[in-house]
Amino acid sequence: MFQSEVYVNRRRGLLQQMASRGAHGVAVFLGNVDAATNYRGNDYKFRQDSNFLYYWGIDEPWFAAVLDLDSAQECLYGNDVDIDDIIWMGPQPTVASKGAAIGCAATAPLADFYKAVTAAVAAGRPVHFLPPARYYNQMKLSQLTGIDSEAVRKVGPVAAGGASEELVKSVVAMRLIKEECEIEELDKAAEIGYWMHTEARRGCKPGVLEQEIVGRMEGVTYSKGWGPSFTTILSQNGETLHNHSHHQIITPGRLLVVDAGAESNTHYASDFTRTYPCSGKFTTKQREIYDIVQQANDNAFALTKPGTTYWDVHYATARFLLEGLKALDLVRGDVDEMLPLGISGLFMPHGLGHNMGMDVHDMEDLGENYVGYAEDQKRHPLLGLGNLRMARRLEPGHVITDEPGIYFIPALIEQWKREGTDKGFVNYEKLAGYYDFGGIRLEDDVLVTADGARRLGPHRLPILSSDIEDVMAQE
Amino acid sequence: MFQSEVYVNRRRGLLQQMASRGAHGVAVFLGNVDAATNYRGNDYKFRQDSNFLYYWGIDEPWFAAVLDLDSAQECLYGNDVDIDDIIWMGPQPTVASKGAAIGCAATAPLADFYKAVTAAVAAGRPVHFLPPARYYNQMKLSQLTGIDSEAVRKVGPVAAGGASEELVKSVVAMRLIKEECEIEELDKAAEIGYWMHTEARRGCKPGVLEQEIVGRMEGVTYSKGWGPSFTTILSQNGETLHNHSHHQIITPGRLLVVDAGAESNTHYASDFTRTYPCSGKFTTKQREIYDIVQQANDNAFALTKPGTTYWDVHYATARFLLEGLKALDLVRGDVDEMLPLGISGLFMPHGLGHNMGMDVHDMEDLGENYVGYAEDQKRHPLLGLGNLRMARRLEPGHVITDEPGIYFIPALIEQWKREGTDKGFVNYEKLAGYYDFGGIRLEDDVLVTADGARRLGPHRLPILSSDIEDVMAQE
Repeated sequence: MFQSEVYVNRRRGLLQQMASRGAHGVAVFLGNVDAATNYRGNDYKFRQDSNFLYYWGIDEPWFAAVLDLDSAQECLYGNDVDIDDIIWMGPQPTVASKGAAIGCAATAPLADFYKAVTAAVAAGRPVHFLPPARYYNQMKLSQLTGIDSEAVRKVGPVAAGGASEELVKSVVAMRLIKEECEIEELDKAAEIGYWMHTEARRGCKPGVLEQEIVGRMEGVTYSKGWGPSFTTILSQNGETLHNHSHHQIITPGRLLVVDAGAESNTHYASDFTRTYPCSGKFTTKQREIYDIVQQANDNAFALTKPGTTYWDVHYATARFLLEGLKALDLVRGDVDEMLPLGISGLFMPHGLGHNMGMDVHDMEDLGENYVGYAEDQKRHPLLGLGNLRMARRLEPGHVITDEPGIYFIPALIEQWKREGTDKGFVNYEKLAGYYDFGGIRLEDDVLVTADGARRLGPHRLPILSSDIEDVMAQE
Repeated sequence: MFQSEVYVNRRRGLLQQMASRGAHGVAVFLGNVDAATNYRGNDYKFRQDSNFLYYWGIDEPWFAAVLDLDSAQECLYGNDVDIDDIIWMGPQPTVASKGAAIGCAATAPLADFYKAVTAAVAAGRPVHFLPPARYYNQMKLSQLTGIDSEAVRKVGPVAAGGASEELVKSVVAMRLIKEECEIEELDKAAEIGYWMHTEARRGCKPGVLEQEIVGRMEGVTYSKGWGPSFTTILSQNGETLHNHSHHQIITPGRLLVVDAGAESNTHYASDFTRTYPCSGKFTTKQREIYDIVQQANDNAFALTKPGTTYWDVHYATARFLLEGLKALDLVRGDVDEMLPLGISGLFMPHGLGHNMGMDVHDMEDLGENYVGYAEDQKRHPLLGLGNLRMARRLEPGHVITDEPGIYFIPALIEQWKREGTDKGFVNYEKLAGYYDFGGIRLEDDVLVTADGARRLGPHRLPILSSDIEDVMAQE
């Protein structure tokens, strides 16, 4: 938890944001409750709702809050514990003292929150809430407001009777620009991610079970932070972008894609990807593709600075990859022609990067377009070019990932071939020799600064193909 | 996943169980869906519903099934993947082939499941379902059946319009007795638990942060199995039974309670507790209490055999603990008199153990009393004696925990003193010297066999106070 002033300032900022959008009524915030694994009471490790954490700081289940947009009154709701709780959970600070820690003088039991919301609804006041990520909050918001349970997830003007677009836009405007205290935590998360990935690289030895490495990596995140910031991707089938099975044995000659990050104890994320040769040495064919991706990563970083849009960096990266693939004769023809046709999407069907903060895809549940696109920016319609999550004009305080990749996805190649999607630019004959290649992705976390950008964390993970081989030879 | 015959036999057994209870209509099973951590799409590690796993074996989200109790027809519901899924998740087997793997010939898309349930409701057929653990399934069942979302969690005769008591009793009757293939998996989970606890003991050195040890322990569970079978309890405040904060530094002179277990990749649990002296050596005061608990654990194990009720073993353990505490002059008077008054509950406010299987508290969401108590057994009303989760007459194939403990909980002692709950049996004067003691718990996992019991796992964790000191001195 940060100093109480941080939360006081954020809530003050939110009032200003909402006023600037002409919003009235109340803004209500539901914290998360425990989420059962296999039965209620046997819960996943608690993760607070990120927006609740941002404005109200309390990192415990069963809390809620109301901010009155007209009177600026605020109240934190939660229940004090009884003797049964003390036996099982130990003595706990009061809700009042928790409120004091975040600069909120008014506190009340949770039942009063339900009353406050239903009273606001009954009085016809606009009730602003964010689209709930968790099913419990979806169910609860629907019950409290009388809005259909699907509609509470739908963002639009508050008057439309769903999640509040005014509140979504206000929150996005604030959370997109990271404060100094947040950047410190992001650097810590990046350091945990560094050690997590170091464990992965050291574990990448022929004969080792993938799951064995994942466990060691995730152990680091629990020892030093909250845990993984998302489900670890560690796979020799790197062409599958989000591969979560880990039952294979590390096999010489293959490539191992490791896309993983850590969440700090204060709930800030990191997200790195490295790709290792399972034998410790790249083959020529692997190195050719690897070096294109590695240079694309560096190239994108060099372009990252205030004033540029991340769309431009994404598009420049697509060009860079196509030029590299053309040099290998995997695509043929004029890069300027194939670029707007989305040919890069066959090889990189995802975006260059996304916003990152308390959420590894920051605020994704508020709506990818609200978060990643300015009002005058439209999504590109094609695979790859259109999969960019963060297109906005860069500003100091933005935190984004830089994660180009090249993949050879047999099912997708076959589909393009069948449907002629490539317009003749793809050399399928040569590509046939890459069906067992897998994929390569290389990702760093980047802070936009006043005059450029810096990578997060105290150390950069080795990334040059020669450095990877050197360090693997020593480990 | 087991051989298909295992699931075929279980579903056949369930039909027989339901028929023996005169049940008609359909039994419906909802698998779990992904559960968001901070936003939808960033999910906790998937955990299938245990009952779904038991009868339908499929360890993936978005599956459901129907078993027709009248026609014995069955159908597995799930969706095949499209090209977008292949890019992100890789090629997947068809739902039909997944059905074949569990001996279920009929499969259909998930939308047909919703239709099947609403059709059964519309036709007035009894629809049997288990109380849903997850909020999504609670919401979905309520939508499909038209039953209020609170009522779908309430167990009673199916005619009462809630979760089906007939189905609950049938499932409990089957899952309580572990099959050979399940016992093998429980032994594996116990072995992972062994290595997890070995990591804990080795990590218990002055100056180490508790969280550091927890991470290393949990890393073992992810490397070798699904993960922890419940949130790891590792605390120098052992008097707090379920302490989940890990921010303290290991401090000489204190005791470290470690209550943790692993879940195998096939989703069977282990659950062990050991208590370590942080300096590597017990003080005399610590050893006196430790040895009582250790002997109570051995004593309970010796009493565990078919024909005895676990209530009797629990009660015998309460007596054993009181005798030990009397020898230390912490309680005074006739043990036979204080025993039925629940005086042991001040020191051990929990039960001797619980059923264990796919769930660490097996089937707890079906209702603790349905699972742990026969119809002619009533819960004791007092703290401690009444907190036993498993009271049944033991049968071969039962898997239970043996976990006596002694705790000194200042808030509880003060309450008893204030309210005279101890009826004069407690020596508060001597007890005042134990307010900073903490607590001790020692737990093994036990299988009831044909002629007695055996502890699960290939090795028993060191437990004798002298063995603990010896092994800690070497590590």
